[in-house]
Amino acid sequence: MAENKGVTPRSEDYSRWYTDVVQKADLADYAPVRGCMIIKPYGYELWENIKSALDCRFKATGHRNAYFPLFIPMSYIEKEAEHVEGFKPELAVVTHGGGSELDEPLVVRPTSETLFGEAYAKWIQSYRDLPMLINQWANVVRWEMRPRLFLRTTEFLWQEGHTAHATRDEAVDETLKILDIYAEVSEKVCAVPVIKGRKSPQEKFAGADDTYTIESMMGNTWALQGATSHFLGQNFAKAFDITFLDESNELQHVWTTSWGMTTRTVGAIIMTHGDDKGLRLPPAIAPIQAVIVPIWKTDEQRDSVFEFANQVKSQLEAVGIRMHIDERDGLSPGFKFNDWEMRGVPVRLEIGPRDVEGQSVMAGRRDVPGKEGKQIIPVAELAARIPALLEEIQEALLREATEFRDSNLHEVNSYDELKAIVGTGWGLMWHCATPECEDKIKEETKATCRCFPLDQNPEWSPEGAKCAVCGEPAFGKAYFARAY
Amino acid sequence: MAENKGVTPRSEDYSRWYTDVVQKADLADYAPVRGCMIIKPYGYELWENIKSALDCRFKATGHRNAYFPLFIPMSYIEKEAEHVEGFKPELAVVTHGGGSELDEPLVVRPTSETLFGEAYAKWIQSYRDLPMLINQWANVVRWEMRPRLFLRTTEFLWQEGHTAHATRDEAVDETLKILDIYAEVSEKVCAVPVIKGRKSPQEKFAGADDTYTIESMMGNTWALQGATSHFLGQNFAKAFDITFLDESNELQHVWTTSWGMTTRTVGAIIMTHGDDKGLRLPPAIAPIQAVIVPIWKTDEQRDSVFEFANQVKSQLEAVGIRMHIDERDGLSPGFKFNDWEMRGVPVRLEIGPRDVEGQSVMAGRRDVPGKEGKQIIPVAELAARIPALLEEIQEALLREATEFRDSNLHEVNSYDELKAIVGTGWGLMWHCATPECEDKIKEETKATCRCFPLDQNPEWSPEGAKCAVCGEPAFGKAYFARAY
Repeated sequence: MAENKGVTPRSEDYSRWYTDVVQKADLADYAPVRGCMIIKPYGYELWENIKSALDCRFKATGHRNAYFPLFIPMSYIEKEAEHVEGFKPELAVVTHGGGSELDEPLVVRPTSETLFGEAYAKWIQSYRDLPMLINQWANVVRWEMRPRLFLRTTEFLWQEGHTAHATRDEAVDETLKILDIYAEVSEKVCAVPVIKGRKSPQEKFAGADDTYTIESMMGNTWALQGATSHFLGQNFAKAFDITFLDESNELQHVWTTSWGMTTRTVGAIIMTHGDDKGLRLPPAIAPIQAVIVPIWKTDEQRDSVFEFANQVKSQLEAVGIRMHIDERDGLSPGFKFNDWEMRGVPVRLEIGPRDVEGQSVMAGRRDVPGKEGKQIIPVAELAARIPALLEEIQEALLREATEFRDSNLHEVNSYDELKAIVGTGWGLMWHCATPECEDKIKEETKATCRCFPLDQNPEWSPEGAKCAVCGEPAFGKAYFARAY
Repeated sequence: MAENKGVTPRSEDYSRWYTDVVQKADLADYAPVRGCMIIKPYGYELWENIKSALDCRFKATGHRNAYFPLFIPMSYIEKEAEHVEGFKPELAVVTHGGGSELDEPLVVRPTSETLFGEAYAKWIQSYRDLPMLINQWANVVRWEMRPRLFLRTTEFLWQEGHTAHATRDEAVDETLKILDIYAEVSEKVCAVPVIKGRKSPQEKFAGADDTYTIESMMGNTWALQGATSHFLGQNFAKAFDITFLDESNELQHVWTTSWGMTTRTVGAIIMTHGDDKGLRLPPAIAPIQAVIVPIWKTDEQRDSVFEFANQVKSQLEAVGIRMHIDERDGLSPGFKFNDWEMRGVPVRLEIGPRDVEGQSVMAGRRDVPGKEGKQIIPVAELAARIPALLEEIQEALLREATEFRDSNLHEVNSYDELKAIVGTGWGLMWHCATPECEDKIKEETKATCRCFPLDQNPEWSPEGAKCAVCGEPAFGKAYFARAY
């Protein structure tokens, strides 16, 4: 029983705490192949909830799901010059199939722009076929030298959207519309606040004209890239010759976008909300929103407590709450309380013989420790008050994370000021957007350029602004931070 | 426009008709890698509907979803002797990753018993951990020499359930419970009637003690295996040393099962219901259940027709019908009628100026051609009558397929009788269950042993019954048929 008792406190060792939580809360386990992981049911249910939040938003904006193959001929990856340069070092390559060596090696998809490019060239003939708005839910493989559960794994799950448009403006609009969906799902569903921004040329997707990103601050102030949306210009359109006849019957290349969000999001949720005791899950995605812990001594008490617990469960399930009763024998209530706290269930309902008598339950919030987070709720009020309580917790988690983040964002006026705060916060600093300055900063501080936030002056390269490192004209203000 | 006009009639060339339907109805397309396919949105939506029908039934019976890795070390595949023998010829092998040659080649999963086996050995300690009921939705790869869209592809999508139990009986019950779920989804949701049966030793899963199957008859009388559920005995439990302490504190091996249903089901639906004009989709899984074809001449008519069409659409969407309005310009109503018939939409609603005036629509059934399938429905009755009509169509398709199948099932009393009917029906014949007789039958007639149907005398090897081929004692009556 001691094994489940707790995790390394977050305050003691953040990195070990993270690995402990992932494994002890049964979110994931290591797989026999290094860099791969098994997503266990509790972790996968989190992902299913994130998936459905994204999927319904994609569909509501006119996107349709499809499925493209796992294998890509090596020659396809090589068609777009930047693309192959970016991905070649991370590829897994199939050389044998069906007992023989293959004529051409096959790449296990690291991303599917090339396959979509080939298909779109075939499927798109005229402006009537545009826009083409397709998404797929799939696994992808990028060889990972320093793997970390959920955050960096050789294989991961994601969705990848690929769209083609008649005009540049439409494609840019799509890129930003998707960025808004990612931001909304991250903030409203995962309670993870984000900064929307534009990546520097060094950090953008291999083959994109522009990459937009949502960046979040984890509990140790490090940054995590939550999802990216790429404006691909006509790069893939030209590499794969994706053309259409416009309304004046002229042949033109399309404009394309691509965008993805991954199982890494589960890692972001853990690291944003977790505390010394383990996970804290936002109600909107928690596999179990309220857990009932029955408390009894005699067999007679057991019967009445379980009967009442089942009533409460049905009542709350009827209003759409995801419920669970901890029916395990031979474990003390205290053990169970710790266990469910570690697993991050937002609300705990304690039901003992006195509660049965009083026809009420003791409800405890995971996010508010001690007496302050507890309240007695009469059974008649449960169906109204538990959903309201869950909403309150959802908002409280977002508020707490936002306050924590905002208190660790610093506008810095010099490179020295940046150096002073890196590791304990993010610095917003004038930046020229060149790889040279980013390499220097990374080497000297380990911080990377997270993004040029979109909420600054929308005119890039403002007059008179100089890069804090090299003194050349700045492209804008960019956040620098240690990152996962 | 001619390109969409039609498919090769089914009556003319069944095989070409199938490929035509798949491609022209936009269900799937060929991929650059031979044997792989692109599932297009219309085909994927069918799969999504099949998926959710299965997924909710798995969850209702206590199964949880997880995700296991794509890559399996070659040595794992080799742990169960029959398993490796069965799968080795079909493997895709990754030999290079991250720019270097790997120490041990990795297999792209053809199925995941080995990975689940390894994990279960780690996760299961005591009888309290049982049963372990996990499913995953995933892609798998089995190298395919004679690929066919949906029916046989090198990569396909499926779910694979893997369960572990304390007793043999429980594991057998699970195997059959899942078989019932498969049969229900096939019949009630896909309107594809099935025969539940047991595979012969030659046809069972590599590593199973027993394989149960659902077998369906396609429109050309060939058989198609719809899904399989395997009782694995203690084969994998012993190969991976999956043990538990039972209630008397004795160490025992678990009993395991595995079961899967695949994207091949889409092929079964096409081949069961399709006709000369193309697809006919059962309403329960049709991505579009009713399509509105607006008919107009003048701009004024266009406005009022579209306004009315949108009202009808909203009204029917409000009662849960999946609707679409064909808003395409420059195509005649006749062209659109053919197009939606080819795509198998169960109900067509025609709306012209006279319908606007009369506040009614002309509803046509895809499954009943000509006037007989048409009726005028007043707008006030749509919300009640269209759902009823869809149910009627669902039942009619199942009934039609069942009647067709039953009229082509033959109880045969000798091998000669079997020979006479193979190719135009299935023969039910006493069979010894040996590979020798099956090989002989296959060589001489091309028919394979589909299954020993479960609805015969449940006592296998009935006294006095002799195999119709070799004269040795029969195990039971088995169906033989040409099969996909």
